Amino acid sequence: MNQVAEAVGRTNVAEVARRAKVASRLLAIVPGESRNAALEAAACAIEEHKAEIVIANQRDCDDAIRAVEAGLMSRALFERLQIGEFGIAQMAAGVREVAALADPLGRNLAVTELDDGLTLYKESCPIGVVGIVFESRPEIVPQIAALALKSGNAVILKGGTEAQQTNQILVSIWSHALTHFCDIPPDVIELLYTREDVDEMLSLTGEIDLIIPRGSQKFVHYIAEQSSIVDRSADLYKAMNIALDSKVQYPAACNSMETLLVHEEAAALFLPELITRFRAAGVEVRGCLRTLNLGEALGVEPASEADWETEYPDLIISIRIVASMEEAIEHIDRYGSGHTEAIITEDGEAASHFMERVDAAGVYHNVSTRFADGFRYGFGAELGISTGKLHARGPVGLEGLTTCKYKLIGNGQTVDSYIRGERTFKHRKTSRVAQCE
Amino acid sequence: MNQVAEAVGRTNVAEVARRAKVASRLLAIVPGESRNAALEAAACAIEEHKAEIVIANQRDCDDAIRAVEAGLMSRALFERLQIGEFGIAQMAAGVREVAALADPLGRNLAVTELDDGLTLYKESCPIGVVGIVFESRPEIVPQIAALALKSGNAVILKGGTEAQQTNQILVSIWSHALTHFCDIPPDVIELLYTREDVDEMLSLTGEIDLIIPRGSQKFVHYIAEQSSIVDRSADLYKAMNIALDSKVQYPAACNSMETLLVHEEAAALFLPELITRFRAAGVEVRGCLRTLNLGEALGVEPASEADWETEYPDLIISIRIVASMEEAIEHIDRYGSGHTEAIITEDGEAASHFMERVDAAGVYHNVSTRFADGFRYGFGAELGISTGKLHARGPVGLEGLTTCKYKLIGNGQTVDSYIRGERTFKHRKTSRVAQCE
Repeated sequence: MNQVAEAVGRTNVAEVARRAKVASRLLAIVPGESRNAALEAAACAIEEHKAEIVIANQRDCDDAIRAVEAGLMSRALFERLQIGEFGIAQMAAGVREVAALADPLGRNLAVTELDDGLTLYKESCPIGVVGIVFESRPEIVPQIAALALKSGNAVILKGGTEAQQTNQILVSIWSHALTHFCDIPPDVIELLYTREDVDEMLSLTGEIDLIIPRGSQKFVHYIAEQSSIVDRSADLYKAMNIALDSKVQYPAACNSMETLLVHEEAAALFLPELITRFRAAGVEVRGCLRTLNLGEALGVEPASEADWETEYPDLIISIRIVASMEEAIEHIDRYGSGHTEAIITEDGEAASHFMERVDAAGVYHNVSTRFADGFRYGFGAELGISTGKLHARGPVGLEGLTTCKYKLIGNGQTVDSYIRGERTFKHRKTSRVAQCE
Repeated sequence: MNQVAEAVGRTNVAEVARRAKVASRLLAIVPGESRNAALEAAACAIEEHKAEIVIANQRDCDDAIRAVEAGLMSRALFERLQIGEFGIAQMAAGVREVAALADPLGRNLAVTELDDGLTLYKESCPIGVVGIVFESRPEIVPQIAALALKSGNAVILKGGTEAQQTNQILVSIWSHALTHFCDIPPDVIELLYTREDVDEMLSLTGEIDLIIPRGSQKFVHYIAEQSSIVDRSADLYKAMNIALDSKVQYPAACNSMETLLVHEEAAALFLPELITRFRAAGVEVRGCLRTLNLGEALGVEPASEADWETEYPDLIISIRIVASMEEAIEHIDRYGSGHTEAIITEDGEAASHFMERVDAAGVYHNVSTRFADGFRYGFGAELGISTGKLHARGPVGLEGLTTCKYKLIGNGQTVDSYIRGERTFKHRKTSRVAQCE
């Protein structure tokens, strides 16, 4: 059962990656029903071994509380580390939810008859070996393991050292369940421990196909700066609700709003009440000069240049009054992180210009930025939110863990006969294709 | 007209990239019909300026012929550099063909009603700024420029120095046509000259979203090693035709076959005749020990370890006899480049196992590897073939130059009401979605 842990204990990352690659090739041809059966086996194993998980977590927590007392760890981090029996039940339920999702593999993304008897299929398939670097919360282990298994990928996990014992028992339970009940190689899941291991992982491009960092901007260089624009044609009642939801509902989330841009024609009517309500909700408000003029008596502090590019996972917001939509878009071009940007307006043309023009994974009209989330998008689960433009963009679910391959099936066709003009391509598209996420 | 050339002459790559980024944002909102009109204007400009193009190309060729005489350039490279009036007419025709393709932007990749009045659209959009590094053939300039413009991307080109004057006049004509007839900023196309510029380009990740190397393995580290497997259940007549087509039809192509793996049960019947025909077609045949035993009298040379991983853009092939399908797949796992692998067999189960198991952008059944090509796949044009698994895989056409954004349109919805259970998500998928390439 501790095969994986022992192997990783030696921390030969190249060897771990090589084993994961071999395992990934075997996993890639495991049918969907077997992958689902393995998920069920893993969910049961988590429930059965709940006492061991609690004990391992208690050890991590004992170490952590000493770190908190010594001022080396924040209480918030400590709280996210703790898991109880309810948390363990939720882990198992989450794994079963992933099992219930549609199979992301073998989907026809496009079908083209190149010619009679010569058909090209663009089919979804696993990426191979995926490395995931994440922070303390141990409940992420079964979530990621489930997404990886469902999508046919081997996964190499690097969690926070403070959750080391909890993560290790979870990975051991997982790989044990796969091997003993499902004949899936245990090396489809591997655990690394140190930041040096991550550095080595980054160099193993031949074995590891994709590395996904998941977590806050302190951990990796990742800024999730969201803004909302209140246009001059905004419905101010909607704008008020959305602004409060985007900031106050759960400020620690990566999709909460950091900057509010308000059109000068809406500012005088809108901002005093909004600032009053923000202050009542305990929000620290920082503003541009014009905002200060409007709201200094309400406790607005001056915003610095740094405020426009800062993610506050906290009850802080920066507000800027702009003279035009173009000024707002320039602000986003300059300071935005490409995560999610929202506009509040009743002017449909302004909204659609904004949504075309702004370069972000999510562009919203009359909706809170807090909707940027794989569960809310209907993906069933989420690995993280990508602000990159290549491969997955926005919330990454199962589809983000797949790539495609082209399958071409013929009956002895040669290119020569097309080049000599004996045959010509027909390129008939078939409409029976699967929808993307 | 020489605005671009002059600016690049100073080779301030960061400044070039910054300008391209600004231009890309303006181009992103140019409607499809205007992008098509711009393509038509560019095609006309190429035709009108054909004399200038011929003169510039003649200068490049004059320099090149001296390099050939001095033994500094191969005659093959020299030949690819030359363009005549027919080549120029073809360039213009190619641009018009791209204009005639369906608009790759603004396609609905997925539509989900999250709730009544809250709809999520996954829509295709441009990537932004794309850098393309390519070799000598100047006809690639209008091809790439057309694909980039059609897909709403700014493009930074770095061609071979031997084609410098031809490339420069082509880019000047192109950007002049855009500015003077279409009100599209000239900076949507930029030209770089030196390899140092490419190094600098690679560091500008804030401005350049994607860099695509296009060309042979000498130019970038890019190996396109293709193999075909002749299974024991192969129809040997088909196998013969496919093997000859894959190797002899156009050996310099990146999709020609480099390695032939033959099942031992088919070898004795198949190989002597195939080798005879390869030799008659001028192909140098290198073989494993067992192939040598069969074919030494036919002029087979011994294959070295290096032969299994070498791309020959030439009439050379390496042949290996394998004892099983698994041995063939292991060979591909070890030496394959992930480009295209074919199997020739009448055994449907063997074929489908091969196609699931082999990790390559293209997996073919009873078809020549030479079909791996964007035109043959029906994409209308091709930027290159990607062996990467992230973003585009296989032939890269217009779709490979797009990413997506999520547009969420609501009417004041807040996340709070879903968290408190007042509303629940419906996640209804709509089937009106566009097919991928």
